Amino acid sequence: MDEQERPLSLVLFSGTDDKLSAAAVLTVGAAVMGRPVNIFLQYYALRAFRAGKVHADHALAWEATDAVAPDIRAHPGQHWSELLKQAKEVGEVNIQACALSMDMFHLRPADLDPLVDGVEGVAAFMASASDGQVVFI
Amino acid sequence: MDEQERPLSLVLFSGTDDKLSAAAVLTVGAAVMGRPVNIFLQYYALRAFRAGKVHADHALAWEATDAVAPDIRAHPGQHWSELLKQAKEVGEVNIQACALSMDMFHLRPADLDPLVDGVEGVAAFMASASDGQVVFI
Amino acid sequence: MDEQERPLSLVLFSGTDDKLSAAAVLTVGAAVMGRPVNIFLQYYALRAFRAGKVHADHALAWEATDAVAPDIRAHPGQHWSELLKQAKEVGEVNIQACALSMDMFHLRPADLDPLVDGVEGVAAFMASASDGQVVFI
Repeated sequence: MDEQERPLSLVLFSGTDDKLSAAAVLTVGAAVMGRPVNIFLQYYALRAFRAGKVHADHALAWEATDAVAPDIRAHPGQHWSELLKQAKEVGEVNIQACALSMDMFHLRPADLDPLVDGVEGVAAFMASASDGQVVFI
Repeated sequence: MDEQERPLSLVLFSGTDDKLSAAAVLTVGAAVMGRPVNIFLQYYALRAFRAGKVHADHALAWEATDAVAPDIRAHPGQHWSELLKQAKEVGEVNIQACALSMDMFHLRPADLDPLVDGVEGVAAFMASASDGQVVFI
Repeated sequence: MDEQERPLSLVLFSGTDDKLSAAAVLTVGAAVMGRPVNIFLQYYALRAFRAGKVHADHALAWEATDAVAPDIRAHPGQHWSELLKQAKEVGEVNIQACALSMDMFHLRPADLDPLVDGVEGVAAFMASASDGQVVFI
């Protein structure tokens, strides 16, 4: 397998806008290089992908002091959901909700934003990670 | 080496119950697939593995608002320590305490839960990670 | 490519002293093994590498309670910036600032500590990660 084709697999746990943006930027970078990207949504990140909640304010990491937060919020970059949409258009990006977290928060597939492609268990996610990189955010 | 046999190496830094659960679920998923799993306990995660402390309340990530925390705590899934025990029964799971963190918190091996297999330095951990995946949680 | 030569690529997002120390220790461990290490500075981690700010107090993760923080601060280990300097002396360690985060915080290369080797975009970072491990801290 060509190394450029190894998947990049992201476990998204945190649901703050800064970490979701960092994840979306990594996704775009990998998709542009022709690498498949698998995203697995757990806990707080899953909640950020609920239908109607994607564009809500998901706060920033607790490190974002009053001295820093305005610069982050004022940055004219695109919203992480837009970056993920574009990554899906140019590459092979698959976004799955963690079945355990779905159960934990009493969510059904219809409760999720259309960006989410499905629901799967951790074994399926680990199998799709194959010999690529796994990153926990 | 068959890609399924590449180790999954987890550096556990955070010691909250939600992140430890996420780590334990990844461990089970990899162990069931026949992959060796190496866990390296640092900082707050190491403290959660002290003898007699495993089942204490280790709090949740700061993102767990009052609207979310009850669902997480009420979820009937098994405790992360039970998941790790099972993963050890079905697969090859090795849990090592970081020597630097042991020193930092004045801990001796006898202060740790029996789930922990030993104490090692970062060089030994990186060597065991070999060509597998390294995940920081 | 020999597996020992695969790069270790660290995306540093958090800027607290404990996570930066954990990252520096991983860097030293990999550099000593002869592995190239690429570090990509984003968000709060980038701010910790500003000129004149490296030795400031960057706080600890929010989990560092009053019961734990004194042990962490009293630990006689070297500062993370010293560890990174040593890793650069013994190995091939390249530290790049994320171009997007530079823009977000209105930083110019001259605003950064000499430990930082340059500024690059996420695509360049992902390309340098090649078939090695990618760790988000």
